[in-house]
Amino acid sequence: MIIIGEKLNGSIPSMGKAIAERDEARIRRLAVRQEDAGADYLDVCASVPEDVEEETLKWMLDIVQEESSLPICLDSPSPNTIVKALKYVKKPGLINSVSMEGDKIAKIFPAIADTRWKCIALCSDEKGIPPTAQQRLAVFERILQEADRYGIAHDRLFIDPLVEMVCTSETGVSTVIDTIKGIRERDKDVHIVGAVSNISYNLPARALINQAFVTLAIAAGMDAGILDPTNRDMKGAIYAAEACTGLDDYCMEYIVAFRDGEIGPLPKA
Amino acid sequence: MIIIGEKLNGSIPSMGKAIAERDEARIRRLAVRQEDAGADYLDVCASVPEDVEEETLKWMLDIVQEESSLPICLDSPSPNTIVKALKYVKKPGLINSVSMEGDKIAKIFPAIADTRWKCIALCSDEKGIPPTAQQRLAVFERILQEADRYGIAHDRLFIDPLVEMVCTSETGVSTVIDTIKGIRERDKDVHIVGAVSNISYNLPARALINQAFVTLAIAAGMDAGILDPTNRDMKGAIYAAEACTGLDDYCMEYIVAFRDGEIGPLPKA
Repeated sequence: MIIIGEKLNGSIPSMGKAIAERDEARIRRLAVRQEDAGADYLDVCASVPEDVEEETLKWMLDIVQEESSLPICLDSPSPNTIVKALKYVKKPGLINSVSMEGDKIAKIFPAIADTRWKCIALCSDEKGIPPTAQQRLAVFERILQEADRYGIAHDRLFIDPLVEMVCTSETGVSTVIDTIKGIRERDKDVHIVGAVSNISYNLPARALINQAFVTLAIAAGMDAGILDPTNRDMKGAIYAAEACTGLDDYCMEYIVAFRDGEIGPLPKA
Repeated sequence: MIIIGEKLNGSIPSMGKAIAERDEARIRRLAVRQEDAGADYLDVCASVPEDVEEETLKWMLDIVQEESSLPICLDSPSPNTIVKALKYVKKPGLINSVSMEGDKIAKIFPAIADTRWKCIALCSDEKGIPPTAQQRLAVFERILQEADRYGIAHDRLFIDPLVEMVCTSETGVSTVIDTIKGIRERDKDVHIVGAVSNISYNLPARALINQAFVTLAIAAGMDAGILDPTNRDMKGAIYAAEACTGLDDYCMEYIVAFRDGEIGPLPKA
């Protein structure tokens, strides 16, 4: 599982406050903690008004890249900001995100076409998040066409099937799971990514629901997650899901993670 | 999920000791605890030599049926003992078990044909546990033929796909999951049952593996489990799996179970 650490995001209230107060120490700390916990990318999102977004991102990126050599996941709702901020990132990372909405692809794909940048692409369009798996897969087809048009290899795409909270659903997680299966059947090369913990929004004992979902999602073909790598329950869930779905022969990685104290119940104090 | 409480089984060392010492109190206590924890059946297995098995089972059954009105899951490796012990059970329950090995079906199916007894049937035969899902499904077909021959309706069968430990496997849990899917595709009426916690045998942090497995098994069509209903982690896993697989509209049962204190992290003392 490719893990994109989600904690350096201004939409999280404590991080929004740290950004507003230019609290460098907090940003450094969370960069290091996520790297130590096994993140593969560090998401960096300012979540401020667009007129101050570029300078805020630059400030965050400079700090994060001093502390960590992990690739950056450059995160903004504005394609203009993303294109402008590319120059502040030292080495090609991951863009978060495009979709079939507006001019996102028209602005971002040309800017990364001849680079090694990768890109998250959401299965949504002008009309928002399609309610059915079939409709999300139709958006996915249009994304692939655009990638082909710009010569972006499919393994540079991280397709997001859009994880929504399960508690408003009659059918459980079947829409997103069917979307994941459909993406994987259509294309073996794209990555499939999701904001895993969205599934348990508004529910108690969220770790239980997150674990059940991540198991089904990994079994269906998801291979990347935007999540908190310092969350021990989530990590245990991912290792267990990989052990059960044939991604971890003889459970060796699971056993090593347990021995290293990364997963499982904490010893009683 | 239909829950068959597994704790009144002499092959568990503490229960074996209680049976040897004729410790009535312990048997009463575990019957009540499993009923209170939501068991649907109470498995009763003496696990003693066959020459004293009938009398031992009678002793256990009398005690259990004084304490609990739950139906019994009458459990013995000997079809002779099962047929003889039927008379000690007050109302039709579940038999554990037949398979295509030896004369089990030939002895047990005629004895229950014209009753309301149900029966667990393992997908194994003379040669033991078949290594592939396809071979287990072939055994399942033979079990259905035998049930039809004796006029036993399919919804009286609890088919066991045979849950084995995952830690000796290169392919994770795919053999048993494919068997479950194949059974469910072939027949909508049979129940599918498994000894869920077998999956995590020899692994640390077993709750993590059990939860991942039970999620995949429920998604594939398993609807019954032989397990410890007093295990809080297992119960949380089952409620979460049902919420994620569309068996619990709007997660209402999950939320109620949490509010009732049945699932989720225990409050800190």
